[in-house]
Amino acid sequence: MIGKKIRLNRLFDKSSKKIVIVPMDHGAYMGPINGIENIEQTIIAAHEGGADAILINPGIMRFIPTNLLGELSIILRITNTNVKSEIFPYEPVISSVSNVIKLGIDAIAFTVNIGGLYDLEGISEFGKVNEECQEYGIPLLGEFLPAGAKMVDPYSSENVKFVARIASELGADLIKTNYTGSPETFREVTSTALVPVVIAGGETMGTDKDVMLTIEGAMKGGGAGICIGRNLWQRKNPRKMIEAACKIVHEGASVNEIIDKL
Amino acid sequence: MIGKKIRLNRLFDKSSKKIVIVPMDHGAYMGPINGIENIEQTIIAAHEGGADAILINPGIMRFIPTNLLGELSIILRITNTNVKSEIFPYEPVISSVSNVIKLGIDAIAFTVNIGGLYDLEGISEFGKVNEECQEYGIPLLGEFLPAGAKMVDPYSSENVKFVARIASELGADLIKTNYTGSPETFREVTSTALVPVVIAGGETMGTDKDVMLTIEGAMKGGGAGICIGRNLWQRKNPRKMIEAACKIVHEGASVNEIIDKL
Amino acid sequence: MIGKKIRLNRLFDKSSKKIVIVPMDHGAYMGPINGIENIEQTIIAAHEGGADAILINPGIMRFIPTNLLGELSIILRITNTNVKSEIFPYEPVISSVSNVIKLGIDAIAFTVNIGGLYDLEGISEFGKVNEECQEYGIPLLGEFLPAGAKMVDPYSSENVKFVARIASELGADLIKTNYTGSPETFREVTSTALVPVVIAGGETMGTDKDVMLTIEGAMKGGGAGICIGRNLWQRKNPRKMIEAACKIVHEGASVNEIIDKL
Amino acid sequence: MIGKKIRLNRLFDKSSKKIVIVPMDHGAYMGPINGIENIEQTIIAAHEGGADAILINPGIMRFIPTNLLGELSIILRITNTNVKSEIFPYEPVISSVSNVIKLGIDAIAFTVNIGGLYDLEGISEFGKVNEECQEYGIPLLGEFLPAGAKMVDPYSSENVKFVARIASELGADLIKTNYTGSPETFREVTSTALVPVVIAGGETMGTDKDVMLTIEGAMKGGGAGICIGRNLWQRKNPRKMIEAACKIVHEGASVNEIIDKL
Amino acid sequence: MIGKKIRLNRLFDKSSKKIVIVPMDHGAYMGPINGIENIEQTIIAAHEGGADAILINPGIMRFIPTNLLGELSIILRITNTNVKSEIFPYEPVISSVSNVIKLGIDAIAFTVNIGGLYDLEGISEFGKVNEECQEYGIPLLGEFLPAGAKMVDPYSSENVKFVARIASELGADLIKTNYTGSPETFREVTSTALVPVVIAGGETMGTDKDVMLTIEGAMKGGGAGICIGRNLWQRKNPRKMIEAACKIVHEGASVNEIIDKL
Repeated sequence: MIGKKIRLNRLFDKSSKKIVIVPMDHGAYMGPINGIENIEQTIIAAHEGGADAILINPGIMRFIPTNLLGELSIILRITNTNVKSEIFPYEPVISSVSNVIKLGIDAIAFTVNIGGLYDLEGISEFGKVNEECQEYGIPLLGEFLPAGAKMVDPYSSENVKFVARIASELGADLIKTNYTGSPETFREVTSTALVPVVIAGGETMGTDKDVMLTIEGAMKGGGAGICIGRNLWQRKNPRKMIEAACKIVHEGASVNEIIDKL
Repeated sequence: MIGKKIRLNRLFDKSSKKIVIVPMDHGAYMGPINGIENIEQTIIAAHEGGADAILINPGIMRFIPTNLLGELSIILRITNTNVKSEIFPYEPVISSVSNVIKLGIDAIAFTVNIGGLYDLEGISEFGKVNEECQEYGIPLLGEFLPAGAKMVDPYSSENVKFVARIASELGADLIKTNYTGSPETFREVTSTALVPVVIAGGETMGTDKDVMLTIEGAMKGGGAGICIGRNLWQRKNPRKMIEAACKIVHEGASVNEIIDKL
Repeated sequence: MIGKKIRLNRLFDKSSKKIVIVPMDHGAYMGPINGIENIEQTIIAAHEGGADAILINPGIMRFIPTNLLGELSIILRITNTNVKSEIFPYEPVISSVSNVIKLGIDAIAFTVNIGGLYDLEGISEFGKVNEECQEYGIPLLGEFLPAGAKMVDPYSSENVKFVARIASELGADLIKTNYTGSPETFREVTSTALVPVVIAGGETMGTDKDVMLTIEGAMKGGGAGICIGRNLWQRKNPRKMIEAACKIVHEGASVNEIIDKL
Repeated sequence: MIGKKIRLNRLFDKSSKKIVIVPMDHGAYMGPINGIENIEQTIIAAHEGGADAILINPGIMRFIPTNLLGELSIILRITNTNVKSEIFPYEPVISSVSNVIKLGIDAIAFTVNIGGLYDLEGISEFGKVNEECQEYGIPLLGEFLPAGAKMVDPYSSENVKFVARIASELGADLIKTNYTGSPETFREVTSTALVPVVIAGGETMGTDKDVMLTIEGAMKGGGAGICIGRNLWQRKNPRKMIEAACKIVHEGASVNEIIDKL
Repeated sequence: MIGKKIRLNRLFDKSSKKIVIVPMDHGAYMGPINGIENIEQTIIAAHEGGADAILINPGIMRFIPTNLLGELSIILRITNTNVKSEIFPYEPVISSVSNVIKLGIDAIAFTVNIGGLYDLEGISEFGKVNEECQEYGIPLLGEFLPAGAKMVDPYSSENVKFVARIASELGADLIKTNYTGSPETFREVTSTALVPVVIAGGETMGTDKDVMLTIEGAMKGGGAGICIGRNLWQRKNPRKMIEAACKIVHEGASVNEIIDKL
């Protein structure tokens, strides 16, 4: 387990022990949406904004600027689906732990939509990947989200804490899940998840300030950081948005302190 | 088979030859329910109460206090499902015998819901795991439960003895199944199961005394012990409940003898 | 193929070249029915009655009395289903040829219900097991039974000879199938099956004499022996029933000669 | 590929470069039909009649007379289904290339029913077997037949040439398919199939002469030979029928020349 | 990755850095259609017309004239389906990367129909093949096409750019997809695809000039070349059509310059 500890320590910011992940894996899910059409620019913006890590698909490894290799941590998504698929939201595995090792990647991201008709296939695959991650010391980010007819509201603390705990019971080292809307409700999630939790950004929020308030709320609710993409790089100035997010996450800045600089 | 014998002897209490297992694998099935929100405390309570073993999911290995490693036997659940899944109650395999060996775990727990549409997949996987358990000498706890439209009452002795016998015919060393409600009916199960049987606790029972009466009944009916979670650690004083259960299971105490100390 | 010949010769009675198999694999299919509740006693009765072999599930190996190991041939069932399953009658594989070799078992029993929706999965698995049996010289008993909407009467000679021939074309060394009701109709099966055929006993028959008449008829129809369980060990005196069956099978006795001794 | 060439040359008649295959694999598909009840006799008749090869199922290897081993080429069917199966016409794989090598078999026969709901599974398996056949130099006979709702007439040249070409594109060295009814229409198949094509016999034809006219037509249409079973060995004198077929295929005899000797 | 670079450089024309691929893999999908009945002639025409590569099925390797081996690049299709299949358009894998290496093939073509009910199986298989291609340095051509009820128009730039980007996110080195009808709309695809894009020809277009206008449009829209079959080799003079296409792709000729020579 020492390999995992080394890699986990390297992934998190050394002083704050928090993490800002900028996901830009949307291309394989929604196509070339605004903000990642030129993925190299998005990667550079994430780095310049101070992000700790990016979350990408296997084919994007080729487009990371050479000077950033080893500078910016890379989390590789190894499951995939797309919005046009009719058996959405099942996400099959598309890459392997051995590939991740060969490529020097820092952590694996694996999505399971809990509930519905396909979650058990995902759970079974997650179990196998977890064993390999344990053996080779690769950190495992579980993106666990509520889904299916039995979980109507995917943002309720009841449903979010349900899926977050499943993730840690199955071995996740870090959990990405939905923000529940307030620090109090999100505290229910973070206090029972057993491992660090970062929030997904999801659909577009209103103003830049709304985004920052969400981040602030998640941190107040015990979050370990963020994994927000569209709500950062689809804004007018992605780099500034990422910088602001880092200030809240890593320095504990309040939204009021940073809002003028956006 | 000598490896199995060594490990089985170590699992059961040396003088009574009975076993008290405290399962706390509910997190991956129902989320962070009351009593396991802080799993480390539940593990400590089980140990202090005198339990022989705990039953956990793979991701919980990290949270066992270091001083308890080797002190408290660990049974690892290697199948999993959750209450929000729409193909419940199929339980796919999520971990392997080789992983169990690497982690120094004392026994495997494998659930098969007999009856219904998915039992044959479970039986087939159980068969493979059984062969590996035989080869490497790992005790196999079969949690076999009645399910499906052909078994309306999952607590009838007819159905419980049916599933228990399937478990032993397929190789289980120890069976966890439902209590049938009385020593006489439970005797039908234990006298035809061929291997030791422990009872599941299931849904919340009325008073603490009701729990103890159930345990007493199971032991009178020939049970080899218990595998009860919620009805012990969701009570006011989990540690005392576990202690009381141990007295009944290991020392043959009657409910009357112990009821005042709860 | 010399390994197969050695094992097949050892399985059949040396002078009569016939075989009496007492199956007691019902526990994993129907639960602990009367006659096998205490499986050790049933094994002993089979041996004392003069049976050549017993047919059991993997978990029952543990209950064979030590002094009978090597005395009584063991045929291991490596497929399984149960009467409460809703996808009955598909029988998945639950054990492997390599396990059979490790355990010193004399032959494998593999059930395929021909016809219906699941037979091709069974046939495909049977093909793989057949190749391994060929390679390692393990005799393969094919229990092939008519099933599905296209075979209304599972006892008609038309259907029974259909499934028996499929078994031998796919590699079975010995076939277990239904008795067709008369020596003449059963001759149609045995004369076209290419390999020896033993009859299943099936549901409870009327009197002890009815059982013996069935056995006599099968032998007159060219049968190689029997594989009857419930109709022998659910009777008042299992051992005597097995002895009587052996007299008919091995010594060619008529029912009239043996009926008074029952 | 030199291994394939050696084995293919050996399979075809050395002077005519044509082939007469007598299939007798029907037992696993239709049961012990008339003409193969005693399979050894059918094998002998095929040899005495001058056939180049027989096509059999794995379990029939045991019944080839020892003196014919190495005398008569053997093509092994490694897919299987039966007429009572309700998911007919999918044919799963039941044997492996490595088994075929061990047994010294001359070629593999693999059936894919093109069209319908199951062909893609067959095509995928065929692709894997083709790669192994290429690696080990084993000739691959593709029995490709039109099936499914989109191909109403399985004997039309449009449908037959469609499936024949798929077979060669996927790697078949020799194709078995339906006869289209006339030399002209069959020429459409053979001229676009890229590899040699032999005809299946199919259902019972009227007179012996009808059978011979079919064979003559296939050869006139560019066929490489025949793979006919029932229409040869279900006739009064199988050996003579096979002899007559050989005269047409290998010596280019006309039906008129040979019809009096039947 | 150096192996990939070597093979990719070799695949593209050295001076123009564009590519003309002539696919002739239709036989396994539509049968022996006009233009590929004699596949050897089509291969020769492609070579004489100046094509950089042909795209074929595994069974066609045998029909490449010996003198063209090493002269004409070969892209092997390793997925397959056919127009008569009722589960069309799922395309299972029929060949392996290791086979491709053994045969000295220059690149792999893998089709995934994005959208609908089967795309996730294809995506999962594509992911595995991508890892092997990366490891062994084999270029991977992703033929990604819009399909399913959620993508009504498979030629809209919205849908085409969606599928093209998925291909590159998953690792494709080169993308084959539909032409969107105009240079402007096609530019939306090529500017967001991250890797080179070639167009499929699809159904028969009107005149030879229409074909050339399409090619010209694709190149103006940023295309890396073409992968057109029927619209070249089903024309009166395939060789001349291919020559003309090469002039547009490699020399940047306008349709007006070349139209008189057709």
